[in-house]
Amino acid sequence: MKKLINDPEDVVDEMLDGIVAAHPERIRRLSGTGVLVRDDAPVDGKVGVVSGGGSGHEPAHAGYIGDGMLDGAAAGEVFSSPTANEFEDLITACDSGEGVLAVVKNYEGDVMNFDTAAELVEMEGTDVATVVVNDDVAVEDSEYTSGRRGVCGTVLVHRVAGAKAAMGADLDEVQRVAQKVIDNVGTMGVALTSCTTPEKGDPTFDLGEDEIEVGIGIHGEPGVERTTHTSADAITDELTDAVLHDLDLDEGAEVLTIVNGMGGTPLMELYVVNRRLQELLGEQAIETWDTWVGEYMTSLDMAGCSITICSVDDELKELLDEPVDTPALVKP
Amino acid sequence: MKKLINDPEDVVDEMLDGIVAAHPERIRRLSGTGVLVRDDAPVDGKVGVVSGGGSGHEPAHAGYIGDGMLDGAAAGEVFSSPTANEFEDLITACDSGEGVLAVVKNYEGDVMNFDTAAELVEMEGTDVATVVVNDDVAVEDSEYTSGRRGVCGTVLVHRVAGAKAAMGADLDEVQRVAQKVIDNVGTMGVALTSCTTPEKGDPTFDLGEDEIEVGIGIHGEPGVERTTHTSADAITDELTDAVLHDLDLDEGAEVLTIVNGMGGTPLMELYVVNRRLQELLGEQAIETWDTWVGEYMTSLDMAGCSITICSVDDELKELLDEPVDTPALVKP
Repeated sequence: MKKLINDPEDVVDEMLDGIVAAHPERIRRLSGTGVLVRDDAPVDGKVGVVSGGGSGHEPAHAGYIGDGMLDGAAAGEVFSSPTANEFEDLITACDSGEGVLAVVKNYEGDVMNFDTAAELVEMEGTDVATVVVNDDVAVEDSEYTSGRRGVCGTVLVHRVAGAKAAMGADLDEVQRVAQKVIDNVGTMGVALTSCTTPEKGDPTFDLGEDEIEVGIGIHGEPGVERTTHTSADAITDELTDAVLHDLDLDEGAEVLTIVNGMGGTPLMELYVVNRRLQELLGEQAIETWDTWVGEYMTSLDMAGCSITICSVDDELKELLDEPVDTPALVKP
Repeated sequence: MKKLINDPEDVVDEMLDGIVAAHPERIRRLSGTGVLVRDDAPVDGKVGVVSGGGSGHEPAHAGYIGDGMLDGAAAGEVFSSPTANEFEDLITACDSGEGVLAVVKNYEGDVMNFDTAAELVEMEGTDVATVVVNDDVAVEDSEYTSGRRGVCGTVLVHRVAGAKAAMGADLDEVQRVAQKVIDNVGTMGVALTSCTTPEKGDPTFDLGEDEIEVGIGIHGEPGVERTTHTSADAITDELTDAVLHDLDLDEGAEVLTIVNGMGGTPLMELYVVNRRLQELLGEQAIETWDTWVGEYMTSLDMAGCSITICSVDDELKELLDEPVDTPALVKP
């Protein structure tokens, strides 16, 4: 394993300091924790929107802290949930009195620790609402979850909930639009290589020189099918078909699409995938309203990509058009 | 080799179509060429700013097409210069009558073909000015260049020249500020792995499991020193010292820094490097005015990073604060 790290035990700690060092006027770290928050948190009169989970998915989630998106995010060790206490500190730091929406990816550790944290802060008088993201259409249950996993669609939940909160909506309304995204988004991914965690130093799973793993999650957990490596077009077809089958869209539906890199795949290849994806949607009379191509929810150094499709109505389009200003996502 | 591509011969063509498919209302392709331009090019009354070079460095250069940055960019095959005719088409498409600045990375093919194109369009009455970026402090000459190579600092030249042009400056002024960046920027990179071109399918150079290559360029060409892999801090120290030695800054100087990923290195590791970089600059009483961490100028799937430091005065700070709206760089 060759990585740009120091002691593997320090990698998350040093990464968090590196994020703050990149944005010292915008993001601060709660001392002694893996929690980063907006420098001006809690924002007066605004519902807080927070998220978090294991590290290794950068820019998720700290890269989405800023105006129009998250107020803060908790980072656990690599692929490990933050503690309930960290989630508690996060929620407390982001509550201005208007309540806090917690956006949780559906992993048992995250869900459990967020729930415990919510109980703790509610006893202190903070209103907390939670949404659980489960956009991965590949598997019904998995190594890490009861029910579907939360993957790249989570970023759209942050975006929409953050925009609604920035417009001054109350907690119920912010929760409602977040859930609307969850109800209308699907994702499926493929790995060309395994990822390697800093601690273990070896690939999490073995994949032959001509094999790919279809339907992987974002923790190096196995997918649903190991198959022979094939063309970008064939892979795009398979991922897209699976997502579209799950979403069951009407002809003429408008969608936002994401071609998301898993960490080790260059942008060049993601654009090749996007070309085919847009061709396919055109053939099926589905209208692409917006297109994201890049790294939004990664899995360390894994090569591969995921395709996310979210059906958007007028309300979601309006929210997705609101300004956002974060390290990883900016829109004037 | 496992890549998300179809026929290796089509990868650049399909990538360019994928970029247009991601931004159909903002970017168009000149038919039959590797040239992408702003949809509204040429922009009335504005000096054009263009760039280009071999593919494999995405988001460079097409990702920087948009308001406040490039009017267009030519893409050659992977690591190969666009043709003189493509550069000619590019310049012509971006000339509103106010002239065009060509930002050229210092590689023999790019320089030669841009020069030929400039001669051709000048005969048709287009004013062209050229700046040649040579920010790589690692080597004086190289496999591909007479003189230093142009690498990640090029993105800052695009940014500053594009901002100046957007403010309505004339061609001489746009060229002057572009050259000012070149005179004040230095970069040095390290590879943890080789890259693999789609055509060749094998790593461009062999690097042992515990070796790194210091001072690499962005084409898989050899660096200046092959050494044993070490900590992120030690690597950051070596790169930073080399750049600072070249720049010879005064105490209290203000700088913009870039920690740039080479394509295969996750953001997590880039932030670990940024942490040490900012620590080092602080120790030397150099003031970081702005910090970029991400992938700006890559080398296919190479693992590794480069560090860029640019000394900024009031004029450059003002230009770097102007709004920009491109696929890869946005600032409100």
